[in-house]
Amino acid sequence: MTDLSLALRDLVVANRILASEDVVDAYGHVSIRHPRDATRYLLARSLSPELVGRDDIMEFALDGTPVRGDDRQPYLERFIHGAIYEARPDVQAVVHAHAEAVLPFTITTTALRPVIHSGSFMGGHVPVWDIRDNFGDTNLLVTNMAHGRDLARCLAGNSVALMRGHGFAAAARSLIEVVRMSVYVPRNARALLAATGLGPVKALSQGEIDARAAGYKPHSPETWRAWEYWARRAGCGHLLAKRPVKPAKRSKR
Amino acid sequence: MTDLSLALRDLVVANRILASEDVVDAYGHVSIRHPRDATRYLLARSLSPELVGRDDIMEFALDGTPVRGDDRQPYLERFIHGAIYEARPDVQAVVHAHAEAVLPFTITTTALRPVIHSGSFMGGHVPVWDIRDNFGDTNLLVTNMAHGRDLARCLAGNSVALMRGHGFAAAARSLIEVVRMSVYVPRNARALLAATGLGPVKALSQGEIDARAAGYKPHSPETWRAWEYWARRAGCGHLLAKRPVKPAKRSKR
Amino acid sequence: MTDLSLALRDLVVANRILASEDVVDAYGHVSIRHPRDATRYLLARSLSPELVGRDDIMEFALDGTPVRGDDRQPYLERFIHGAIYEARPDVQAVVHAHAEAVLPFTITTTALRPVIHSGSFMGGHVPVWDIRDNFGDTNLLVTNMAHGRDLARCLAGNSVALMRGHGFAAAARSLIEVVRMSVYVPRNARALLAATGLGPVKALSQGEIDARAAGYKPHSPETWRAWEYWARRAGCGHLLAKRPVKPAKRSKR
Amino acid sequence: MTDLSLALRDLVVANRILASEDVVDAYGHVSIRHPRDATRYLLARSLSPELVGRDDIMEFALDGTPVRGDDRQPYLERFIHGAIYEARPDVQAVVHAHAEAVLPFTITTTALRPVIHSGSFMGGHVPVWDIRDNFGDTNLLVTNMAHGRDLARCLAGNSVALMRGHGFAAAARSLIEVVRMSVYVPRNARALLAATGLGPVKALSQGEIDARAAGYKPHSPETWRAWEYWARRAGCGHLLAKRPVKPAKRSKR
Repeated sequence: MTDLSLALRDLVVANRILASEDVVDAYGHVSIRHPRDATRYLLARSLSPELVGRDDIMEFALDGTPVRGDDRQPYLERFIHGAIYEARPDVQAVVHAHAEAVLPFTITTTALRPVIHSGSFMGGHVPVWDIRDNFGDTNLLVTNMAHGRDLARCLAGNSVALMRGHGFAAAARSLIEVVRMSVYVPRNARALLAATGLGPVKALSQGEIDARAAGYKPHSPETWRAWEYWARRAGCGHLLAKRPVKPAKRSKR
Repeated sequence: MTDLSLALRDLVVANRILASEDVVDAYGHVSIRHPRDATRYLLARSLSPELVGRDDIMEFALDGTPVRGDDRQPYLERFIHGAIYEARPDVQAVVHAHAEAVLPFTITTTALRPVIHSGSFMGGHVPVWDIRDNFGDTNLLVTNMAHGRDLARCLAGNSVALMRGHGFAAAARSLIEVVRMSVYVPRNARALLAATGLGPVKALSQGEIDARAAGYKPHSPETWRAWEYWARRAGCGHLLAKRPVKPAKRSKR
Repeated sequence: MTDLSLALRDLVVANRILASEDVVDAYGHVSIRHPRDATRYLLARSLSPELVGRDDIMEFALDGTPVRGDDRQPYLERFIHGAIYEARPDVQAVVHAHAEAVLPFTITTTALRPVIHSGSFMGGHVPVWDIRDNFGDTNLLVTNMAHGRDLARCLAGNSVALMRGHGFAAAARSLIEVVRMSVYVPRNARALLAATGLGPVKALSQGEIDARAAGYKPHSPETWRAWEYWARRAGCGHLLAKRPVKPAKRSKR
Repeated sequence: MTDLSLALRDLVVANRILASEDVVDAYGHVSIRHPRDATRYLLARSLSPELVGRDDIMEFALDGTPVRGDDRQPYLERFIHGAIYEARPDVQAVVHAHAEAVLPFTITTTALRPVIHSGSFMGGHVPVWDIRDNFGDTNLLVTNMAHGRDLARCLAGNSVALMRGHGFAAAARSLIEVVRMSVYVPRNARALLAATGLGPVKALSQGEIDARAAGYKPHSPETWRAWEYWARRAGCGHLLAKRPVKPAKRSKR
């Protein structure tokens, strides 16, 4: 398989994982920057993520224009992806989701921050973007590059930006990392929400956040274990790149 | 298929979606105004929504009388539907549901209002109807036109009315819109409930509510995507009106 | 089928419904007074309710002694059932459950009371029984008639008693009513719990509780609809006593 | 079957139960001390618990070294198990889990304590271990014996230690007991969390905790009932050690 073929297959798995883990439902999407052309990204046509197959994936210029005259219906909010890729050369994958658990943090003044170890990947600062600040009354959707660039400015160098009354956008160096972050951001949100009212909350220190960022590589066994677990739960076990399990050098028990 | 046939088929799908999305359980119902006669509405006989099939649908005069002497058991609370159709010529579909997430807002003084974008369709004002105000101690059910008309007066020109200690009634210009609203009202309620205690809550502005009402058409791709997603989850994919996916004008990747 | 056969069949369905609706899990049980002998009750042997079949049902004297030397393992807490039947000639069915939603109300001072219409059946007063009051430190289980009679005294003429740090006991005039109550008590508890913090709570008035108690008969269509719905969800549709659906007196649409 | 074979089979069942009851997901693990050698323990290779089969189980020295040169990938945090076995000769089984419900109690000052009867097994004191106290900024994982011994010191003679921002470690005299405790600790946490805000909470007394500890034996019928129930829910009914149900000494009804 070519690197592009592998990328497309993994993007299908990512769609299915995010749907299966309830990070996305009918709405929400995940993209990757094109492995061969940094001015392009790959994102499904307008379809529920759980239905996305390889042939549904479209290719876009960073400004959201489908390449090669592909006239299938794209996601209205694809500009979230293009604007982040444009602003962030380090980012190779983006997720936009409405996951319920984060919604309360998008509409109040309590900051979302990492409080459980798996939440560390969101980083020490999670800005909240409010489209009303620069665009007044809208339908809250990121429907053009002006909106998208405004969101990307708010995201800045961070990994996650909340979108007021809407959801979040997550950006990472790899697809496996953005998916993992997107699964754990809601879990961290739930823990923080539940801890409210139980007393002062002890969050992760910046040092802990940094230690975890340094330690976890995209394909370390621990990261792979979660990807494999989620892929199987999503019915995509057959699409996983196989890591051979070494035949055990052991005597029989 | 005739327009009536299509309407009946969509009403079956609506029943199944509301059951599948946990908006209704054994109780709760959805109706449409008769496409050919504004003085009639279509509503299933007394049956759990997840079991409703085409042959279960009965036809009623607005006062709740089954037409043509159909003597099957109707829903006790059909008067919710008839009274709203009577008071609101603009309304073409009605849902009554007990969805758990809204119940806390029916018994306290905190108003339910849109705080997430998908909640915008409930509008800026969600009145709470309390049957006790005009009827004293009852079994809380809307069992005649006097109750129904009182509820319709409370609903007035709004899209959703909460019913104290009971649930909600939702009214819209189309079936797809009342179903979408009914799925998202509980989700919005959960976000608002969770946000309580995290600080002051930022709700959608009236301008945002209006922008979203203007933007979403009943069969826009975004609205259709949710209907298709929910219908498949409800096992009704085969009943969907097919929208052809344009063969992609694209060169092979 | 004899009345005893029908009673046994319904008791099996009741077990499956309570398990399926998460009112009980590995623990919890439901019994009926013997239809032919008021000094006996019918209750499964010690088995998870979702596994109970007709042949698992044992017969007990009110003091908890299995009749006819049946030496299969009975539930340790069968004394809850016998003591209530002994104290309450009007009661024909009893449920003991640990349903999670009620647990917070068993360990604090906030009273559980009906706030949603389907919660009315618990009545206006739900006492909390604490085994420690009269028995000091125990393992919290009702393991003899002394415990059971103390619980029955606390229950008095009410329908539900909470058991501190444990769950609840529910008693009703019929099996369908005790099952319905047991399904709705947790739902009401969840609504009341969620409403806390949203402002003062409007509970059902005694008049409303009474109106609903007078209105609902054990086999009214509305009560049957829920039983049928829950039985089907529990996979017991085939065990339902069939109510014939009248062939519709209607002209073809 | 040999005692080792039975132990391995039960360990597989334990893995599946913990996964099925959502105590663990991709992460989390359960071990037993080797039935024939107290200086060894048995723990799966690095794999999601729901996938663990008999052949995945590895054997370790207490310091975490795989025996017999088994070079398959072990769990990074196996040191939790080894350090507890080292410090506690009474402990025969250990669980490490991230169960969501306990997370709020790991990051605030409200103590987790038994408030429902099934929570009694965690004991009267549940210490909270914070790796930062003695190790400064880390990735929060127990990745060596120094970490593990520090956790074991914090656990001391208790049954459960919370791990700040991480989850918990549970230790018991038998596998069935550590699994039961691990299933009920989250349930107890949920009840306590929900009770917060409803008034002062009545916890179990030390006398009640002791009475329950004395009463429940690992293979009493009540304990077995839960194991059987959970094993069946996990799809492992076929792996259960069969307890014969005595043929009933009763006349036919």
